[in-house]
Amino acid sequence: MLLPSLAAPSFDPGSVWLVGAGPGDPGLLTLHAVHALAQADVVLHDALVAPDILAFAAQARHIPVGKRAGGVRTHQLRINDRLIQLARQQLRVVRLKGGDPLVFGRGTEEALALAAAGIPFRIVPGISAGIGGLAAAGIPLTHRHLGRSVSFATGHDSSGKLAELDWDALARGTDLLVFYMARNRLAELADRLMAAGRAADDAVALVADATTTGQRVVIASLATAARAAETLPPSAPTVVAIGPVVALRDLLAGWQQAEPMTVLAPPATPEPARIRG
Amino acid sequence: MLLPSLAAPSFDPGSVWLVGAGPGDPGLLTLHAVHALAQADVVLHDALVAPDILAFAAQARHIPVGKRAGGVRTHQLRINDRLIQLARQQLRVVRLKGGDPLVFGRGTEEALALAAAGIPFRIVPGISAGIGGLAAAGIPLTHRHLGRSVSFATGHDSSGKLAELDWDALARGTDLLVFYMARNRLAELADRLMAAGRAADDAVALVADATTTGQRVVIASLATAARAAETLPPSAPTVVAIGPVVALRDLLAGWQQAEPMTVLAPPATPEPARIRG
Repeated sequence: MLLPSLAAPSFDPGSVWLVGAGPGDPGLLTLHAVHALAQADVVLHDALVAPDILAFAAQARHIPVGKRAGGVRTHQLRINDRLIQLARQQLRVVRLKGGDPLVFGRGTEEALALAAAGIPFRIVPGISAGIGGLAAAGIPLTHRHLGRSVSFATGHDSSGKLAELDWDALARGTDLLVFYMARNRLAELADRLMAAGRAADDAVALVADATTTGQRVVIASLATAARAAETLPPSAPTVVAIGPVVALRDLLAGWQQAEPMTVLAPPATPEPARIRG
Repeated sequence: MLLPSLAAPSFDPGSVWLVGAGPGDPGLLTLHAVHALAQADVVLHDALVAPDILAFAAQARHIPVGKRAGGVRTHQLRINDRLIQLARQQLRVVRLKGGDPLVFGRGTEEALALAAAGIPFRIVPGISAGIGGLAAAGIPLTHRHLGRSVSFATGHDSSGKLAELDWDALARGTDLLVFYMARNRLAELADRLMAAGRAADDAVALVADATTTGQRVVIASLATAARAAETLPPSAPTVVAIGPVVALRDLLAGWQQAEPMTVLAPPATPEPARIRG
């Protein structure tokens, strides 16, 4: 890959970089993310982050934290403390999160905890599944007439219940609705939106494992979305898009290329030490 | 920069890649974007894209298109036709857009035109100013309590008037409102939101030239935002964020690092030929 000569900001020992890994395709890592991973002493990563992405930090210790639907969950306060502890050991700490670190997923709380502890940190944005993941599935986020506004929300709150949102306003206020972590609450969510006036035949796209070689796309309507979701693997991270732009996919699909990059081999280093989260 | 060995998808002659350049910092380019720029024969770029980003395609012809507030504007249909023409000449064509190619900015129309003409294309997502630009300014997009939902919209429509949106629903429906291209319509926009129930002291952040060395951040309230915007350079691309998470900036600012990468020198090649758009 032909790079101009770049001056990168210094990743100092004793600091924590909150890095967005993007939705899955390693080609969606930013140069800042690659720089951070290549210099990290330790990487605390979500369970969802793929081995192909961790291969960019082959020299670092890898500590899995976070949760996968149905799996074991590391308490958020414990993750915050761990980040602070590791930084105080004068390590270069990467907290690697799927998508963008501040688009849901508690990155903001981590940044606040670091600031409160006096730990220098950096936020390295990532491609969010709600933008790049939908694009890979042929669903354009905005369109001059069909998609003049877009909202992002989560399907459930931290207790697992349907998120408490102003459903009426959300249904009316924006052309495209994008939900993260909504797969398990899709029936209720669709009911709320239909009760608030969205049409039963409003187009819905479900994109699972977006931008990976295992990406699956299901197109449905609000009325059929919950049933359609049953055809997707239950543990696959899934983004849900609801709105008229979903219909544009049919016009684009025949000509769109979307293969991910793949990692052939990590830089030759010994198997990194692994320590428990 | 230490990269694992990667297999990248082939950028075939006769195809067009719609590439997001991110908000300004070259370190926010993705690996797919770098790969596309390094292989491009020709790059049609927005006026907003910085020379540091174009340096990644030093071997390519650069054609400026698009518009800057108040500047000359290339008609969208003419850009679409140009992309098709260049692809039919069996060139590898990059259409380089600020931010993400499908988050406002007419990328969807370009993709639709390419598909209609039978031109293979790829969408390479980019970091949108509404996410990564705000992050660089210390404004986290979401928070478990303060920011459970976020909406993106444009401040004006293609005629330059305030966008026709359901202001009531938008004001009520989401915790954080992010507006692109809203600087020149900020007084009206703030009035609409206050009329729809947002508080006059709702926190507003204006971030101009986000993620660049010239980034400026102004914090105001809905009542004072339009006046505050006058302190920013009129032509600088500005993203506007409205909502309680803006207040978190004060807690983060002292410990956040956000310097961009800078390009020291492009790969040594002759001055690229330039042709007129």
